[in-house]
Amino acid sequence: MAAIKEQLAQRARLVEDFLASCLRGRDFPKRLLAAMEYSLLAGGKRLRPVLVLAWNRVLGGRDEAVLPFAAGLECIHTYSLIHDDLPAMDDDDLRRGRPSNHKAFDEATAILAGDGLLTEAFGFFCDAALERGLPAERVLRAVRLAAQAAGAAGMVGGQALDMEYTGRTGVTLPELQDMHARKTGALISVACRAGAVLAGASAADEERALDFGRAIGVAFQIVDDVLDVVADEKTLGKPVGSDIEKGKNTYPALVGLAESKRLAGEYVERALALLAPYPGEEAAFLAALARYIVERVH
Amino acid sequence: MAAIKEQLAQRARLVEDFLASCLRGRDFPKRLLAAMEYSLLAGGKRLRPVLVLAWNRVLGGRDEAVLPFAAGLECIHTYSLIHDDLPAMDDDDLRRGRPSNHKAFDEATAILAGDGLLTEAFGFFCDAALERGLPAERVLRAVRLAAQAAGAAGMVGGQALDMEYTGRTGVTLPELQDMHARKTGALISVACRAGAVLAGASAADEERALDFGRAIGVAFQIVDDVLDVVADEKTLGKPVGSDIEKGKNTYPALVGLAESKRLAGEYVERALALLAPYPGEEAAFLAALARYIVERVH
Repeated sequence: MAAIKEQLAQRARLVEDFLASCLRGRDFPKRLLAAMEYSLLAGGKRLRPVLVLAWNRVLGGRDEAVLPFAAGLECIHTYSLIHDDLPAMDDDDLRRGRPSNHKAFDEATAILAGDGLLTEAFGFFCDAALERGLPAERVLRAVRLAAQAAGAAGMVGGQALDMEYTGRTGVTLPELQDMHARKTGALISVACRAGAVLAGASAADEERALDFGRAIGVAFQIVDDVLDVVADEKTLGKPVGSDIEKGKNTYPALVGLAESKRLAGEYVERALALLAPYPGEEAAFLAALARYIVERVH
Repeated sequence: MAAIKEQLAQRARLVEDFLASCLRGRDFPKRLLAAMEYSLLAGGKRLRPVLVLAWNRVLGGRDEAVLPFAAGLECIHTYSLIHDDLPAMDDDDLRRGRPSNHKAFDEATAILAGDGLLTEAFGFFCDAALERGLPAERVLRAVRLAAQAAGAAGMVGGQALDMEYTGRTGVTLPELQDMHARKTGALISVACRAGAVLAGASAADEERALDFGRAIGVAFQIVDDVLDVVADEKTLGKPVGSDIEKGKNTYPALVGLAESKRLAGEYVERALALLAPYPGEEAAFLAALARYIVERVH
C-alpha cells in the first residue's frame, strides 16, 4: 500500500505541475483567479488525470500530449466540488480540511470560479490537439465524451438526482447506483476512456478502459460512503457522519456496512479482470490503484 | 426597421427549431431537463447564433453545418442569464417577463441547469464536425475560441468584475468598457468570429468578423443600459431602472443619456465600415442588424 501511494503521488505531481502554471498569467480578474486557484491547487489525489495518463500509457500514448486534457478533467472535477458545496446545494463549510470556496471567498465568486473552471477545461481539452499535436478528430471525440460525462446526463444530472433523493425515504439501490454512476462514475470512467481514445485505441480497448473506469467508480463511491461512517474528521477533511446528518442516501444506510465493503471488493475484482489483456508496468499500476481504493479504509 | 425585425425573426426560427429538439429525449433527470428547457426555450432574439450563421454565410459556409455550433453559443448565453439572476448575483426575480429560473424552480436546480447548459454547449460544438462534417481542426479552433470568450478572461470574468464594481463609486469609463467587453462583448464577437472560422475564412476575414462583433457588442451594451432608463417594464421584461437601483455602473450614469446614444451610433458606424469588402445579401443583413441595434430604443 505504501508503494502505490508513492506511485500515485508521483504521477499526481506531473498533473500538479501543469495545474500550478496553467492559469498563471492569464488575463482573469484577480479575485476570480484567486478563487479558481484556491480550489484547483488544494491538493487531492488527482485521480481523474492520473487515470487519463495511465490508460493512455497502457495503450501507447505519451504523457506530454495528453496532459492538458487530463488537467481539464481535474478542472471539471474541481468546479463540481465548488458548486456542490454551495449553500443552495450541500451547504458544506469545509472541503479538504479548509474553508470551502464560498466560505473563503463569497457565494457569487464561488459560482463564477466554478463556471470559470468548467469553461477553461474545454480550452485545455482543445490544447491536446492545438498545442500538443494529437489528431484533431481524436481530440474532438474525447471532448464530446467528456461533455456528455460531465453534463446533464452525467455528473450534473447525478448531482440533481442527489439533491432530489436527499431526505427522501424509500430510495432504492438501483436509484442510488444510477445516481452515483452519473455523479461520480461518469467522470472517472470518461477519464479512462479518454485516455484510451487519445492514444488512438481500438474499440475493444476503449470499451475495456470505460468498463474499468465504471467498476472502480462504483468501488470508489462505496468506499467514500463507508469512510463517512468510519473515518475520523482529520483524515476525511470534513465532519464524520455528515452524509447521514444531511439525510444523504448511502450504501451503508441502504445495505449495511459489511455488505458495502463486500460490494466494493466485488467491483474491484471486476476492474482487475479487465486488465488481463495488458501486461507491463502500467497495467500493474492500474491494478494496484484499483486495489488501493478498497484498502483506503484507514 | 420592420423588415430587419422580420428577417431576424425568420433566422431566429432556424435556431429555435434546433434548440427545441436538441435536448428532447436525452437521458437527463426530468426536473433538470425542464429547468434547462424553461430558460433555453424562453424566446429571445437568438442574436449570437444568428451572427454565427450570418458571418458563416458571408464567407461561404452552410447553415446546416454550423447550426449545432450556433445553438451551443445560445446554450452558453442562456446559462449565463440563469446564473446572473441567482440571489447571490444580481438577484433578479424576472427574466423576459417570466419568473427567473431559480424562482420557477429552485436555486440548486437553477445552478445545475446553468452548469448543464454550459456543458452540453461543448457537446454541440463538437457535433459541427462529428455530425455535420466540418473539418475537425477548424471546429477545434472555434471551440477553443468559444471557451476563451466564455471563460474567466471573457464572460465569466466580466460578470465577476460587474459584481465587484456594483455599488462601488469611482468606476471609470475604461473599467466599465473592459467589464462589458468581457461580460457581453466576448460572446457576441466570438459568435461572428466562429462563424468565419467555421467557414474556413482567411485571417483577414476572421479579424473583420471579430472586430464587427466587438463593435456591435459595445453598441448593444450601451443601448441596453439606455433602455434600462427609458423603456417601459412590459417592453423590457424586467423592472425599469433596476440597474440604477442595484448600484450598477451604466453608460447613462457615467456619461449621460445623450452621450451614450451618440457613442452607440459611433460603434454602429464602425461595424458598418467593416462590412465594406462584402457585397451581397448577407452583408446587407448584417448591416441592417447593426443599425437595428441603435434603433431599438422603443
